[in-house]
Amino acid sequence: MTIKVAVAGASGYAGGEILRLLCGHPRLATGELEIGALTAGGNAGSRLGEHHKNLIPLADRVLQETTAEVLAGHDVVFLGLPHGQSAVIADALPPSTVIVDCGADFRLEDAAEWMHYYGGEHAGTWPYGMPELPGNRDELESTTRVAVPGCYPTVSILSLFPALASGLVDTRVTVVAMSGASGAGRSPKVNLLASEVIGSVRAYGVGGVHRHTPEITQALSNAANAPVDVSFTPVLVPTSRGILATCTARTSATAAQLREVYEKAYADEPFVHVLPEGEFPETGSVIGSNAVVIGIAVDEKTGTFTAVGVVDNLTKGTGGAAVQSMNLAVGFGETEGLSVVGVAP
Amino acid sequence: MTIKVAVAGASGYAGGEILRLLCGHPRLATGELEIGALTAGGNAGSRLGEHHKNLIPLADRVLQETTAEVLAGHDVVFLGLPHGQSAVIADALPPSTVIVDCGADFRLEDAAEWMHYYGGEHAGTWPYGMPELPGNRDELESTTRVAVPGCYPTVSILSLFPALASGLVDTRVTVVAMSGASGAGRSPKVNLLASEVIGSVRAYGVGGVHRHTPEITQALSNAANAPVDVSFTPVLVPTSRGILATCTARTSATAAQLREVYEKAYADEPFVHVLPEGEFPETGSVIGSNAVVIGIAVDEKTGTFTAVGVVDNLTKGTGGAAVQSMNLAVGFGETEGLSVVGVAP
Amino acid sequence: MTIKVAVAGASGYAGGEILRLLCGHPRLATGELEIGALTAGGNAGSRLGEHHKNLIPLADRVLQETTAEVLAGHDVVFLGLPHGQSAVIADALPPSTVIVDCGADFRLEDAAEWMHYYGGEHAGTWPYGMPELPGNRDELESTTRVAVPGCYPTVSILSLFPALASGLVDTRVTVVAMSGASGAGRSPKVNLLASEVIGSVRAYGVGGVHRHTPEITQALSNAANAPVDVSFTPVLVPTSRGILATCTARTSATAAQLREVYEKAYADEPFVHVLPEGEFPETGSVIGSNAVVIGIAVDEKTGTFTAVGVVDNLTKGTGGAAVQSMNLAVGFGETEGLSVVGVAP
Amino acid sequence: MTIKVAVAGASGYAGGEILRLLCGHPRLATGELEIGALTAGGNAGSRLGEHHKNLIPLADRVLQETTAEVLAGHDVVFLGLPHGQSAVIADALPPSTVIVDCGADFRLEDAAEWMHYYGGEHAGTWPYGMPELPGNRDELESTTRVAVPGCYPTVSILSLFPALASGLVDTRVTVVAMSGASGAGRSPKVNLLASEVIGSVRAYGVGGVHRHTPEITQALSNAANAPVDVSFTPVLVPTSRGILATCTARTSATAAQLREVYEKAYADEPFVHVLPEGEFPETGSVIGSNAVVIGIAVDEKTGTFTAVGVVDNLTKGTGGAAVQSMNLAVGFGETEGLSVVGVAP
Repeated sequence: MTIKVAVAGASGYAGGEILRLLCGHPRLATGELEIGALTAGGNAGSRLGEHHKNLIPLADRVLQETTAEVLAGHDVVFLGLPHGQSAVIADALPPSTVIVDCGADFRLEDAAEWMHYYGGEHAGTWPYGMPELPGNRDELESTTRVAVPGCYPTVSILSLFPALASGLVDTRVTVVAMSGASGAGRSPKVNLLASEVIGSVRAYGVGGVHRHTPEITQALSNAANAPVDVSFTPVLVPTSRGILATCTARTSATAAQLREVYEKAYADEPFVHVLPEGEFPETGSVIGSNAVVIGIAVDEKTGTFTAVGVVDNLTKGTGGAAVQSMNLAVGFGETEGLSVVGVAP
Repeated sequence: MTIKVAVAGASGYAGGEILRLLCGHPRLATGELEIGALTAGGNAGSRLGEHHKNLIPLADRVLQETTAEVLAGHDVVFLGLPHGQSAVIADALPPSTVIVDCGADFRLEDAAEWMHYYGGEHAGTWPYGMPELPGNRDELESTTRVAVPGCYPTVSILSLFPALASGLVDTRVTVVAMSGASGAGRSPKVNLLASEVIGSVRAYGVGGVHRHTPEITQALSNAANAPVDVSFTPVLVPTSRGILATCTARTSATAAQLREVYEKAYADEPFVHVLPEGEFPETGSVIGSNAVVIGIAVDEKTGTFTAVGVVDNLTKGTGGAAVQSMNLAVGFGETEGLSVVGVAP
Repeated sequence: MTIKVAVAGASGYAGGEILRLLCGHPRLATGELEIGALTAGGNAGSRLGEHHKNLIPLADRVLQETTAEVLAGHDVVFLGLPHGQSAVIADALPPSTVIVDCGADFRLEDAAEWMHYYGGEHAGTWPYGMPELPGNRDELESTTRVAVPGCYPTVSILSLFPALASGLVDTRVTVVAMSGASGAGRSPKVNLLASEVIGSVRAYGVGGVHRHTPEITQALSNAANAPVDVSFTPVLVPTSRGILATCTARTSATAAQLREVYEKAYADEPFVHVLPEGEFPETGSVIGSNAVVIGIAVDEKTGTFTAVGVVDNLTKGTGGAAVQSMNLAVGFGETEGLSVVGVAP
Repeated sequence: MTIKVAVAGASGYAGGEILRLLCGHPRLATGELEIGALTAGGNAGSRLGEHHKNLIPLADRVLQETTAEVLAGHDVVFLGLPHGQSAVIADALPPSTVIVDCGADFRLEDAAEWMHYYGGEHAGTWPYGMPELPGNRDELESTTRVAVPGCYPTVSILSLFPALASGLVDTRVTVVAMSGASGAGRSPKVNLLASEVIGSVRAYGVGGVHRHTPEITQALSNAANAPVDVSFTPVLVPTSRGILATCTARTSATAAQLREVYEKAYADEPFVHVLPEGEFPETGSVIGSNAVVIGIAVDEKTGTFTAVGVVDNLTKGTGGAAVQSMNLAVGFGETEGLSVVGVAP
């Protein structure tokens, strides 16, 4: 049996990353996976090689229009579209098609939060493509609809949820997360030009206004089984890829107690690596990989717990989580085509 | 009258930055300022041009040994030495010599904190070279000894002290600060190699162990007139210069109340610029300048105050503060040779 | 007497750099220089501070429309406009107004070359704002029209002209020049996004098609008093500022002969610095400065002369040359407001 | 049968890259490949995870001393050692052991050139690990000794050899090649610190003095069957990985003639990709991949041929070529564990 996949939004960063991973997927070589339609909006009609020079084996593929007709007839459809566009496509495809949406449309449970942060009508809620959260893996194995988590939420939630689930830390948490520029997508904007970003570090979306705030809050509140207050500040740093999240919360627990909680939570997770005491992660070690690397510390003097986590925003933060979710949904091994070994230095 | 200055540690980054600023100081052109001895440790005997290729007018100056004999006979001596070395030099120079120490030796008031964080005996406490703090400017105008603040403390303290002094925010504060690599100095270390730093973001000194923690705590506690708990996490980012500090504290005040406090605190400060509502700073706008740029926000939903500040760690964070302090100590205009206009983009 | 200057295209990089330099010009403090109208195209009506966060003293200036009416009544008008727009403005201003054009419109002498590389009608030829070329300084002191050289031509011509003028090297020269992203201007384009540029080195305009090729060829042919064949390859590197040009030509001369030629050519030039034997420049030492730093070598085994030059493309490569030209045209000291000391590291 | 491999110099960049590739080699999963001893010099005794944070599956491996005893008993030994150290190790291992040397010791044929550029006695010449050169693949399939090419030579030779072998271009060639910092290895040096490299472009080894000059000259002269004069200038750019080489030579051939030559030369090469007319490569598209991407142009006006090539200096430029050579030597498929799909953006 061959799983035929389509990628909508193939000229963007999410689409490109999914295709990069699929090119190395072991089922492609055996013929059990096939790369079907690649679609785009304004770039329809052009060669993929013009947009993703790294995808040499697919360089001569021509991008088609993103329409339900083009996407029909595939077993899996990845969507890397601007928010608000996924529902229309999803409604036009049969329920048996596995749809893996890298956009925000189906992530939030609360329609009011959706409207507040994104505007427009809430499309609904799909299973959340983060198998590492309790209960999610089973759900993802039996669904045909997946909402891939946002990049900031991925690293923030995985860095904090064991602490909050354990009840050992305060439910008021502070997350300061630094992202490379690819997290902002591929639309040309003056403030994302290389000249503006290189040599500079820039805070933005300060004061709870970033759209990933409700997504982080939702998952952490679910984990804590109580409302969690998240102060979230994103920062743009001069890298292409990678997010590092510094997460703090007050605690009266000891370092040993919290370490036990983290080691237990992630003991069987193939992609989450908890560092030994005294070691903290850097984004440079996870580039291109699906790994989440977390270091934790407790400052017992001030009663502060700090978890620092890193991911590659395009891999585990988007395309890798999408492929991981596809693997679960279609019955491949969860880690196939994904690695924990980043390209470093 | 001519003020003759010496720079000890001239081949390091602090020494180089002081010299860069002195080369553009208007009193140099008029002959009221003269650049005397330039000294170094292991680099003594070599040309300055081998170490600082940008200092073209001084390229052929030869570095002398850092000794009290060489430094004697100057009106102002800048020290850019490893910690623990300043006291010996200072003791050997006359009390009338203005000594501006860029090291940590004389910053802390508490000898126990010094020993905990630096080891060895505490050398004492000198006036703190941050004229923007209440009372400091007068003190700096009448001293011959100045402890230049650390780079992380400069931006953290100036971003937070008005809020703490006003009593409008909680005394438990969280600071996550991202610095370019020059903050780590010029000693060759594998983890500071370009290959290791480019493309990566790295947390270090997590859990209250960074040596700048007690310095920030001291100044903020003085400002609040109460003990302040500081959770400080430094992060290394791939730039040469610049620090951005994200500072959060719980508050029940409004954005308008806090804005008033900041605007009042800095109304007459030549180097501190508070951004209008909704704007936040980036390090790229202050490179090479002595400016401190601060943006503030209150998330009234979660009751969180956030101040984001930026400085160039080598200018306002070290060499600029040193020149500013010298200007005050010798009676030049405080802003001479210093600019708020950074080199951007 | 006060010289009143206007800057057209003030929200772009050339305009911003001119304003950065004018903010530090010593005649501004004395009142002999005044910053008048700042104009823009699509950004007219917005605050300058939205576009150039570093220009704190001018942050609240509002950009006006770029029209001859707005620019009239100034002693000096700087033009930082897309090519093809300068002639109309220039024609509408009186002959006594000093116009310093940072665009390409008036650089080329050969109308056919202009049409081949830029299309449209050739506007004419103005004195070339490179005082370091023989005869140019006198001409610039007595003109009211200046064509500021392109950034690649500035470093390529100054690196090669002494060798070509001396007749010691072959007239077939190869220039490979690496530029930071600001050289491409501030228009938003996908291939200039930070994500695309960081971590990458990209050749473009290969095969003699870059528009700066005829400008380099023209100046070097004039210097050699013979046709010079230039193979010019530009390369985009992940920095904001700076160009390094590697220039090679076959020679049968010795290193000593060529060194003498360079030292003589630049002995009295305030902004050109020839490095000692065995030293070669890096762009990092000239950031924000008007310096040109050149290193030369002869490989006597293969008979190859190599000159490596660096400039800051926005300073000596654009805005600094513009201010230098203004200084000459209005009778200020040529080096006023300009420095050879870059911001490093 | 299991191929057991050892890596000497495992804490360096070459060793780390070989291990990164081996971790993803399909024969590892099947048990046909086994990672045996990992050795180091000064780092012996420490965990691999301290040095290569990306190699999560091998993090707890402890580095042993680099001695012939430790390396004995392996089928394949990769050497990533400072030059001059490989011969001693090689002499102590049996002739049947496949030794893949990433150092320079066995690359040059001419003992005098070796002594001139490296000093000390010439160790000999081994088959050159560049299967793309005529005749090399067969030789590599039947050898147990491989000299892996240098990084600059890899891209320079592959970019130029078809043109020189065809006789269509002049034998005087100019190569200007820009490399990321990892090419300089992992020894701590002030001029390789992130602060010194970020934001800067630096020429070095100008005038034919770089050690890769004779290696490039040797291979190109062999290809041309005539002495080739190479002017080689290396440039350090602020990336971790990647080399772009701009190669020029005079020609009287047409673009079409040269294109035909390149397409024919590389038609069956799995790792070399010749771009369509008008396209030129960037290093950002080959990061982590074993691809060589080449664009060519002829400027018929000046009679100049330009080839621009890119590789990842650590992959195809070192570790990837080493694994490719091992695959050939032990009878695995040449491309196993290697990809042409880089991590981008």
